[in-house]
Amino acid sequence: MAKIIGNPLPDMPWENKPAGCTEPVWRYSQNPIIPRNLIPCANSIFNSAAVRYQDEYRGVFRVDNKAREMRLHAGKSQDGVNWTIEEEPIRFVCENLKDADEVGVFEYGYDPRVCFIEDRYYVTWCNGYHGPTIGLAYTFDFKTFYKMENIFIPFNRNGVLFPRKINGNYAILSRPSDNGHTPFGDIFYSESPDLTYWGCHRHVMSTRGGWESTKIGAGPTPIETDEGWLLIYHGVLTSCNGFVYSFGAALLDLEKPWKVLKRGHSYLLSPQTLYECVGDVPNVAFPCSCLTDSETGRIAIYYGCADTVTGMAFTTVDEIMDFLNREG
Amino acid sequence: MAKIIGNPLPDMPWENKPAGCTEPVWRYSQNPIIPRNLIPCANSIFNSAAVRYQDEYRGVFRVDNKAREMRLHAGKSQDGVNWTIEEEPIRFVCENLKDADEVGVFEYGYDPRVCFIEDRYYVTWCNGYHGPTIGLAYTFDFKTFYKMENIFIPFNRNGVLFPRKINGNYAILSRPSDNGHTPFGDIFYSESPDLTYWGCHRHVMSTRGGWESTKIGAGPTPIETDEGWLLIYHGVLTSCNGFVYSFGAALLDLEKPWKVLKRGHSYLLSPQTLYECVGDVPNVAFPCSCLTDSETGRIAIYYGCADTVTGMAFTTVDEIMDFLNREG
Amino acid sequence: MAKIIGNPLPDMPWENKPAGCTEPVWRYSQNPIIPRNLIPCANSIFNSAAVRYQDEYRGVFRVDNKAREMRLHAGKSQDGVNWTIEEEPIRFVCENLKDADEVGVFEYGYDPRVCFIEDRYYVTWCNGYHGPTIGLAYTFDFKTFYKMENIFIPFNRNGVLFPRKINGNYAILSRPSDNGHTPFGDIFYSESPDLTYWGCHRHVMSTRGGWESTKIGAGPTPIETDEGWLLIYHGVLTSCNGFVYSFGAALLDLEKPWKVLKRGHSYLLSPQTLYECVGDVPNVAFPCSCLTDSETGRIAIYYGCADTVTGMAFTTVDEIMDFLNREG
Amino acid sequence: MAKIIGNPLPDMPWENKPAGCTEPVWRYSQNPIIPRNLIPCANSIFNSAAVRYQDEYRGVFRVDNKAREMRLHAGKSQDGVNWTIEEEPIRFVCENLKDADEVGVFEYGYDPRVCFIEDRYYVTWCNGYHGPTIGLAYTFDFKTFYKMENIFIPFNRNGVLFPRKINGNYAILSRPSDNGHTPFGDIFYSESPDLTYWGCHRHVMSTRGGWESTKIGAGPTPIETDEGWLLIYHGVLTSCNGFVYSFGAALLDLEKPWKVLKRGHSYLLSPQTLYECVGDVPNVAFPCSCLTDSETGRIAIYYGCADTVTGMAFTTVDEIMDFLNREG
Amino acid sequence: MAKIIGNPLPDMPWENKPAGCTEPVWRYSQNPIIPRNLIPCANSIFNSAAVRYQDEYRGVFRVDNKAREMRLHAGKSQDGVNWTIEEEPIRFVCENLKDADEVGVFEYGYDPRVCFIEDRYYVTWCNGYHGPTIGLAYTFDFKTFYKMENIFIPFNRNGVLFPRKINGNYAILSRPSDNGHTPFGDIFYSESPDLTYWGCHRHVMSTRGGWESTKIGAGPTPIETDEGWLLIYHGVLTSCNGFVYSFGAALLDLEKPWKVLKRGHSYLLSPQTLYECVGDVPNVAFPCSCLTDSETGRIAIYYGCADTVTGMAFTTVDEIMDFLNREG
Amino acid sequence: MAKIIGNPLPDMPWENKPAGCTEPVWRYSQNPIIPRNLIPCANSIFNSAAVRYQDEYRGVFRVDNKAREMRLHAGKSQDGVNWTIEEEPIRFVCENLKDADEVGVFEYGYDPRVCFIEDRYYVTWCNGYHGPTIGLAYTFDFKTFYKMENIFIPFNRNGVLFPRKINGNYAILSRPSDNGHTPFGDIFYSESPDLTYWGCHRHVMSTRGGWESTKIGAGPTPIETDEGWLLIYHGVLTSCNGFVYSFGAALLDLEKPWKVLKRGHSYLLSPQTLYECVGDVPNVAFPCSCLTDSETGRIAIYYGCADTVTGMAFTTVDEIMDFLNREG
Repeated sequence: MAKIIGNPLPDMPWENKPAGCTEPVWRYSQNPIIPRNLIPCANSIFNSAAVRYQDEYRGVFRVDNKAREMRLHAGKSQDGVNWTIEEEPIRFVCENLKDADEVGVFEYGYDPRVCFIEDRYYVTWCNGYHGPTIGLAYTFDFKTFYKMENIFIPFNRNGVLFPRKINGNYAILSRPSDNGHTPFGDIFYSESPDLTYWGCHRHVMSTRGGWESTKIGAGPTPIETDEGWLLIYHGVLTSCNGFVYSFGAALLDLEKPWKVLKRGHSYLLSPQTLYECVGDVPNVAFPCSCLTDSETGRIAIYYGCADTVTGMAFTTVDEIMDFLNREG
Repeated sequence: MAKIIGNPLPDMPWENKPAGCTEPVWRYSQNPIIPRNLIPCANSIFNSAAVRYQDEYRGVFRVDNKAREMRLHAGKSQDGVNWTIEEEPIRFVCENLKDADEVGVFEYGYDPRVCFIEDRYYVTWCNGYHGPTIGLAYTFDFKTFYKMENIFIPFNRNGVLFPRKINGNYAILSRPSDNGHTPFGDIFYSESPDLTYWGCHRHVMSTRGGWESTKIGAGPTPIETDEGWLLIYHGVLTSCNGFVYSFGAALLDLEKPWKVLKRGHSYLLSPQTLYECVGDVPNVAFPCSCLTDSETGRIAIYYGCADTVTGMAFTTVDEIMDFLNREG
Repeated sequence: MAKIIGNPLPDMPWENKPAGCTEPVWRYSQNPIIPRNLIPCANSIFNSAAVRYQDEYRGVFRVDNKAREMRLHAGKSQDGVNWTIEEEPIRFVCENLKDADEVGVFEYGYDPRVCFIEDRYYVTWCNGYHGPTIGLAYTFDFKTFYKMENIFIPFNRNGVLFPRKINGNYAILSRPSDNGHTPFGDIFYSESPDLTYWGCHRHVMSTRGGWESTKIGAGPTPIETDEGWLLIYHGVLTSCNGFVYSFGAALLDLEKPWKVLKRGHSYLLSPQTLYECVGDVPNVAFPCSCLTDSETGRIAIYYGCADTVTGMAFTTVDEIMDFLNREG
Repeated sequence: MAKIIGNPLPDMPWENKPAGCTEPVWRYSQNPIIPRNLIPCANSIFNSAAVRYQDEYRGVFRVDNKAREMRLHAGKSQDGVNWTIEEEPIRFVCENLKDADEVGVFEYGYDPRVCFIEDRYYVTWCNGYHGPTIGLAYTFDFKTFYKMENIFIPFNRNGVLFPRKINGNYAILSRPSDNGHTPFGDIFYSESPDLTYWGCHRHVMSTRGGWESTKIGAGPTPIETDEGWLLIYHGVLTSCNGFVYSFGAALLDLEKPWKVLKRGHSYLLSPQTLYECVGDVPNVAFPCSCLTDSETGRIAIYYGCADTVTGMAFTTVDEIMDFLNREG
Repeated sequence: MAKIIGNPLPDMPWENKPAGCTEPVWRYSQNPIIPRNLIPCANSIFNSAAVRYQDEYRGVFRVDNKAREMRLHAGKSQDGVNWTIEEEPIRFVCENLKDADEVGVFEYGYDPRVCFIEDRYYVTWCNGYHGPTIGLAYTFDFKTFYKMENIFIPFNRNGVLFPRKINGNYAILSRPSDNGHTPFGDIFYSESPDLTYWGCHRHVMSTRGGWESTKIGAGPTPIETDEGWLLIYHGVLTSCNGFVYSFGAALLDLEKPWKVLKRGHSYLLSPQTLYECVGDVPNVAFPCSCLTDSETGRIAIYYGCADTVTGMAFTTVDEIMDFLNREG
Repeated sequence: MAKIIGNPLPDMPWENKPAGCTEPVWRYSQNPIIPRNLIPCANSIFNSAAVRYQDEYRGVFRVDNKAREMRLHAGKSQDGVNWTIEEEPIRFVCENLKDADEVGVFEYGYDPRVCFIEDRYYVTWCNGYHGPTIGLAYTFDFKTFYKMENIFIPFNRNGVLFPRKINGNYAILSRPSDNGHTPFGDIFYSESPDLTYWGCHRHVMSTRGGWESTKIGAGPTPIETDEGWLLIYHGVLTSCNGFVYSFGAALLDLEKPWKVLKRGHSYLLSPQTLYECVGDVPNVAFPCSCLTDSETGRIAIYYGCADTVTGMAFTTVDEIMDFLNREG
């Protein structure tokens, strides 16, 4: 079967597949792992990114405060399940940023992803700069975050870096958007020699029917396998009562990641539990990060639930590959 | 009081009105009777039609699969409450259909109704053919389903046959629609000498205020009584957070069913339980079929809940007639 | 080249192609032929149908009165160019119509077509009956018009009969719609054994890009040729300032008219003159009838201009066939 | 600290702040206090106004009946928590109203507020008169209600009287609206010498970001304090799945109440419990009245939950003032 | 026949009905009387109000400047046809206005009407104050204009005063609106004892089909006749390419002007000339003032054309009354 | 006064300001210079870019063909006024383009600009690649055009290069958009070291009220002057009948072009002539290129009229600077 290219992570959070479960992905039995009010200022803590950091875990968290402003907070955990989140939002250091008085101003930030490349952790997020676009920063320690240039001109969301250079360039997936509750959206691929200037934009995937008929967007950092980049992505269906966010999977070509090798027809997980169906935005399951263990192929997915709390689900590279082979 | 014209059905599903209940319709205490994942492929099983078949029950079920595609499945039950549903969708036989390569293609199908006329069971449903319209098929055994011509040109939904010819013609209620989440909709009546060609379209009922202010549509096969056709129908109210589907009742003239004799002012049942208010589409109660016992006047209503699961509610022809006399 | 199947009409209105014109269709130099206020009550006289009648011409005209209500008027002409229009709208005789007190009521009527079949002239139009649908009437003399059942359930527009039975059934093209300024619309084909009951609906043509990207609809009665049914149809493009109506051509299979043999890529005529670009609805060229001469292949097209006046354009079957061969 | 100007109310409903709670407002532990079906005709009982009346409590209640029509009912309570509501809606006496046959007709009424001024209780509500506007009536005994002229021309909602004349005139806050689910809305101030003729309209507060980004509206009768009028108001955020109603606080100038002295940045309470998040309109917390005790500074807030049931929350003038000083 | 109650105005602008014209209203042969660029700053000069002043004419003009900002300018004329307009906009004197620093600020102003009552000329217009509402000012000399309180809370347009008190109160017609290109709108009546405080709002007329199906609004100051108030008002039809503004007439009860005695079914004038159909807003004829001669019954109507230039049309009280008797 | 930095162009097209004209920009008396049907395939020829080429003129023209598809054609002229346009669209050479089979496909192209930088002519245009974005190509001879990578990820329009590197990087203005008739839009600045990878996006200008209240976009290549970059840009106002496109001017900082030094309050030219007000899209004046003479300061502006034909207008750098000093 397929093999994850990456580090072993033997102590990653894990729970075996429940007896009788026939699904490729299963929820953590103790969900949600982060309640909406874990820190005093929080209205909700959801679409958030966790990564391995030394022998612990670190993360960047979407925290909407009680004015319903969207902020990013750093957090840490010993086990990847029980988290401590900083009470104050991240204040990005802009000392090396041109025109920092303008582009360094923090308007709003949400839906962060964290990606380790080479020697540091890069954070991308939906960053307000005269409209939503993709913000970029890096950190070595999850204490000091250095802001870089925005990756795109507005309007863009769901910018997700690849964990290594591809053909000599940094690479990112993103979803061009408009400035509201965008009712469309495909995934594109872009590359950069230096993380400042971006180009060679390629269309990757369009929406399709059913669960992913309105828009799609990349979720966690793509997982490198020997068969291709494993992409977990969200898809949106518009019912007469609004958007429903589920997530599914696709396999992208290793060298030309805008080539889709396989794509699951069904979702992997859709909002079905009370904590996914009831909250600030009903019916949302929105994945932003994964932990993986290259030894066992285990994958732990962190996902936002109802735009209110954070949940966790589990699978393995074999489960996903079986799913893609069956459905792709 | 009014009398149901039809067969006795002494062993039909039934539960007495709970003590203290003053409503004309009451929910089954074991709702939902069909969970969303009864069969492996299912995301949800809801707006569905059950009928008597020999000494058992059969049905055609709306099953949305995990790609959120809308499919029709056959099912059976000994008691009308506990159902077995085929894991594979119905594959319609098109051998007698002109241009079967075109109009026989199954795009999508949902919200089926089943109606026994003369010697066979007819299924109508919302059928995708360059837009939603009313599909028609018949079966003798719920194993082989023969597809016929679509009843209408698009766009139409909620096509519900009458259980016998009226004035020598087959008859149907339907709701002309558009191709999206239609924000309007009245009930019309049409007739046909042969179930292929349809005409003499008559307007039956418009929307009114309150619970049925946005659109209305016929629900189960009309129930013939000595006083008129008893029609249970759904109505939609648009709140600032979307559509709310409730259901009510009207009495139609026996010979000119587009003449409304009585119409309830209030709904009979609106979404109020957790399984009606939370799910893929919050706040939906959508009836598609009834079982009736002409001896006792008992009526069991099958209805979709939150576009996710199937529930059952009970009433009697006397309860409904009282309601109509009080409110109509 | 192709040959029109039909009667010779040697004295039909005609004007030769202007020198230097390279277009397949050319406007009449004296356009518009009918001014907006030809009769006292008229605000505008436009989308209208002219036919040969004995050795003269007769027509049914869309006349919007000064309350901007849409009415149908009869008219006549010696030469097909200079018209006299009745000052009073057509009052349809409903004596043979079931439920005439309901379905015989005239709400509004517009965009008439007239089609001679067998022994009489049939008028179809967009008829208000709880929404727009296709009205049907016949006349022998353009004095008495007998209303028949509406052809479709609402919502429908642009119903255009074929001039003979096809495979033993009457046949019609139409465009299912919604109840407003419909922003979508394909052409469908339906058939009837008796002009009352209709079925066997087939999809004919979808919208395409450019001039016909929003919706399309049949125009004049299809012209029978030895190569197929020649269909002149309108197409709509949505600019940032509204709809633009042009018209083009397609060739349909003689026996299966829902099969498109050829279809012009370009429009034949788009609104470019002042009387087509300025008026109650700017930028509309909307054809509703043709006169043809089987001897010479000449075709005269009557079309509404800016929803205000009536114009005429000329072509030949050879011009159109060349166009279709070049572009189809 | 600030002092409420008003009567002591030592036996008002109260529950101490739960241990560990750090919020300025806390919910009543027995919420909801009024279930949706307290009286037989009721579909829901929510946005409602309670006041002190002699040594008991009286109120005017929004009751949507089972036709989902919006009605006003009177009610009473010994303790302010357990309520008895009249089964019949209020029938307003129009004997002194000019053109009572026209403006006295009750179309619909919702979201009442009750305000004691001088010698009687005034009721304002959203009153249907060719669109929503502000209805006005008075009562001495909550049995007979005398209708007065509508305060504004449509379209208006959330009209909330001040409890005394200001600079010699009666005064009201309101939110101009449109005739649907208005997607905008600021709070204005108007005054009247006689409660019939109104003018000197002043803009008070606009929407801001976050929880109050779509529209805002006054909630309970403003509470007079020695530092200003304490205004509890609702704000609406539009998520991709609809409106979310929370409530916050502001302090208005005593003599020029359109001058905002302080305004909380965060909400005081947002929908987070199941009874606030699930119901006829998910995610609504909508306050309409307060009881206050000038001795202790205690405040009890009545608020509608999910447009379905009525809840209660508690705070004190000190809590709110701290909140405003911290955030305003 | 009916008689205009008012002053004789023997030298008012006039042109006889053209030979052959059968319409109740006819255009001035020299239209437009005011070109778009009469003064240097002007982009357009249209919806404007002219009145008799001593032995000359004065007016308040809507002038949109070249930034497309809406401004009011004063102007004068010897003959009512050839106008001189001030190059600078009116600067309203606010010295007697409470809170002049706030409500006296000029945001924008358009569509003025001028009405002489008792001893002075009152100007009403659509005035920007946190949304469009009705501004009010008075002048004795058309040089100094004194601003008064806004008549309504936003959102309102087309406020038109009656030229005398009715039942002891000042009276106005207006059209409640929203804050955009309002797609609805009825005419209401309101009264005031003092021009500051307004109340007793009455619904006058709703939209109807055809030319006035989207919204209606009062035009010139109502003309008093012995049979009632003669109201010329605009109506809007929404075509697929936008709004079409025509105007018609109604007769209101003298003492209860919200009672409509007669109402014309057709329009009096719709945009049909090039200067009405082409301009900044195609297809607009928008009347704002009249001159009348009580001796002859002559009426001269000033109306905006295509939101670009100003035109004039003529009629008589007899023509209008005939029209109303024929159609009302 | 200000001085244009650039080449002299003594024989450029020119016409003196008409006597009596007080406007800063005046139309060419022979407008339109290019009729809609100059070449056989053309429906319209409008938003187009002309440049000096050796001792003649060359251009890239937006030609919508008779299918209303948007194409780019090359053209040439001796005098800049009388143009010859290639009958065939430009076929871009993609030989050096990665993945040319995908990103080299021509979907549609419109609104070209041409900019000479260093040694060649660069063409930018709105290029269809899964949505509108900015296409880039270069040519040395206007015969062979070499396609490069798209400059941005969709959705973007109105990409306009600066004619030299700024601070060592190539620079562009653009307007992020959505995928329809975008109802919003600001101008942004981006830079690139190599014309392939772009970054350092800066917001330049937002919409303002009046003529530029809906969206704005850069027009011709910015004109370098000793006082700053002179930017002529279009602005859009939304009337009830659609968009109105005018154009105005701003002055940008030479080294930090996202800093706006001056900005005209009024438009320079709005659609007022018949050829600007009537056509495929009424009321459009859309500038895409300029010719300038550094000796005299003369400026000739090419602009699209009503999305149908091409016009020309004249001004001088002094006129514009006076305008900006007066209004900016």
